[in-house]
Amino acid sequence: MVKLNNNLLKLETEDIFMNVGEKVSEYKKENPGVNLLNLGVGDVSLPIVPTVIKEMEKAVLELGNGKTFKGYGAYYGHDFLREKIVEEEYNSLNITKDEIYISIGTKTDTTNILELFDKKAKMCLFNPSYPIYRDGGIISGREIEYLELYEEDNFIPRIPKGKYDLIYICSPSNPLGIALPKNELKKWIEYAIANDSIILYDNVYESFITSDDVPHSIYEIDGAKRVAIEFRSFSKRASFTGIRCSYYVIPNELHLKGLDSKSININELWKKRTIAKFNGADYIVQKGAWATYLEQAKPEIRANINYYLENAKYIKEALESLSFKVFGGENAPFLWVKTRNNMSSWAYFDFLLNELNIVVIPGCIFGKKGDKYIRISALATREVTVESMERIKEYYEKEL
Amino acid sequence: MVKLNNNLLKLETEDIFMNVGEKVSEYKKENPGVNLLNLGVGDVSLPIVPTVIKEMEKAVLELGNGKTFKGYGAYYGHDFLREKIVEEEYNSLNITKDEIYISIGTKTDTTNILELFDKKAKMCLFNPSYPIYRDGGIISGREIEYLELYEEDNFIPRIPKGKYDLIYICSPSNPLGIALPKNELKKWIEYAIANDSIILYDNVYESFITSDDVPHSIYEIDGAKRVAIEFRSFSKRASFTGIRCSYYVIPNELHLKGLDSKSININELWKKRTIAKFNGADYIVQKGAWATYLEQAKPEIRANINYYLENAKYIKEALESLSFKVFGGENAPFLWVKTRNNMSSWAYFDFLLNELNIVVIPGCIFGKKGDKYIRISALATREVTVESMERIKEYYEKEL
Repeated sequence: MVKLNNNLLKLETEDIFMNVGEKVSEYKKENPGVNLLNLGVGDVSLPIVPTVIKEMEKAVLELGNGKTFKGYGAYYGHDFLREKIVEEEYNSLNITKDEIYISIGTKTDTTNILELFDKKAKMCLFNPSYPIYRDGGIISGREIEYLELYEEDNFIPRIPKGKYDLIYICSPSNPLGIALPKNELKKWIEYAIANDSIILYDNVYESFITSDDVPHSIYEIDGAKRVAIEFRSFSKRASFTGIRCSYYVIPNELHLKGLDSKSININELWKKRTIAKFNGADYIVQKGAWATYLEQAKPEIRANINYYLENAKYIKEALESLSFKVFGGENAPFLWVKTRNNMSSWAYFDFLLNELNIVVIPGCIFGKKGDKYIRISALATREVTVESMERIKEYYEKEL
Repeated sequence: MVKLNNNLLKLETEDIFMNVGEKVSEYKKENPGVNLLNLGVGDVSLPIVPTVIKEMEKAVLELGNGKTFKGYGAYYGHDFLREKIVEEEYNSLNITKDEIYISIGTKTDTTNILELFDKKAKMCLFNPSYPIYRDGGIISGREIEYLELYEEDNFIPRIPKGKYDLIYICSPSNPLGIALPKNELKKWIEYAIANDSIILYDNVYESFITSDDVPHSIYEIDGAKRVAIEFRSFSKRASFTGIRCSYYVIPNELHLKGLDSKSININELWKKRTIAKFNGADYIVQKGAWATYLEQAKPEIRANINYYLENAKYIKEALESLSFKVFGGENAPFLWVKTRNNMSSWAYFDFLLNELNIVVIPGCIFGKKGDKYIRISALATREVTVESMERIKEYYEKEL
């Protein structure tokens, strides 16, 4: 019998998230009619803005006409979108269209990118971190080491003494909701240059950045083009979670050691890999992504992001007024909140579900160091956000 | 320095196809104003049919409305599409919705699926065959053996004596344009059962099947559910090449040997892998794929397929009238044509390009046994098809 890739048997993420789902479903079944408020979900609650919808409608109609029909051909993305991204996102950073790859989602991109590297390249993940990086490493049978983050450091990662080849940094961070300022990221770029490492920089929450000291691209830091691949997405920025459009940058300055220690241009090589396994992203969605940069769309997009950031502010203020310890929420749509009375993530999850009918994500899903924390999302509607906080306030004010 | 996955350096397909592209570009540059006719392209020339366009327009509008907005959630595809596929494509074959995975293209699916198998599982490819299977194997560092196909057998593959773990069968075939009848496929299923092999059945040209003895699904053959994964696509059937929608079937009966030789349900395991690396296909496109099965859409879709099949018939008759040896074109939009005077693929490609200004694909791109053949596509417009054949006729009638 053909043998299995046994690494697949080690995947855990689905099971853990399933536990959340199952507990919620079970509770709903036993308590029909209850008004459950979901602050767990990482999905957006606002629809796609009108200007983008209009352009996607036009794109659909183009495909029904022989004169404007588009088929194969744009493996790395359509030029109209890659050029727009260069102009709008990497203006003054000297990134070219040829360094941009359009794709179907950062989950896929941050896991697929591992195909670039030798199997022995050692992965470094923060604990806690987004569990998908770990799963990507597990599927491909890689060695993974964890770098623990500490509350006393405000969860800013310490530069390791050891040598790692591949370092995943998610900033602004899911699940922590914090963003690394320029001076911290600079240390990582220096580390990577000194240790010949590659930084896989997951920057999908870039549009939520409000602090002046947080760079909008890793390439704002000198030397980053030699050591970093940046990932971004339209999912949270433009409510594209259901239609899928992401992009990533592989700078031409990035080289790896190939056979005979020859230095290889990774961007050129990844083009071959892309052609071999991918036929490009959907034209309609790429037109939509392009439309997010139209002058008319920009204030619409900004209003949605502000809506979520106001949710985050509301949650932060409400919880801090009750003496919760709250991290994040200023540069990301997530808040990382310490449980009460030293409770475990799961115990506090159960309490919120059973007593207050609020769903959150237990922090331990993101790694052992996430225990005793929960992740609260600011991506729900204002109504759900406000009512959740009122339930929590009512409970704790009674307690106090 | 982080080391490269050196397997990437062995990728050839891009280079070979680039050669075609470069030769064509060079010729155009040196001969501006020339009317080049392209019968090389695997892309469709007809736009998406009106009923499908209408439903995709509706889907776009849904996403602009908070009440009908769709985000994350359908990792394996939306139920409306999976249920429709079960009903329309696998009716009476007892395939369930949970065995269907919706995805973004068969190129991606047929290469990604290799992640399921132990690295040592030995791949078997036909020579000639679609080069992407080879590239997928190369990237993941797998051992590949080739099974040669012979003109004297009408390119029907001979059942091998040796033992292979993973066998790619593309039927109806790209590039050969032929389809394996049920009695031939039956032999492969028996081989796979006897040898504990898995058949990766690329059936993307299914809608072009016209012969009664060619099954529309591999699962029409007894036992196939234990040994075969079937891949299909909306690309050629519904002109979705630019918007990306495919699906594949992993039957619940398919088991592999895991740790301690335990038998593992592959469908369940692939769900975990899918969640770890994929967030589902675009909602708009899935609505479009669903709409291809509406009663109003069916005759529109059929008319497009018939258009290409009529192109194929026209090409076949034209070339046979000039004593060319022609294979395929009856169950697929491709024709596999022997060159004249024992010329190599590239020499004949050059002749057609330079003398008649017609672009085809040299057969050697699909493997060494493809040399001395060319692949002609029936997916161009009728005008391009007819004019190409007239140029060829004019040339050879003069010669005769």
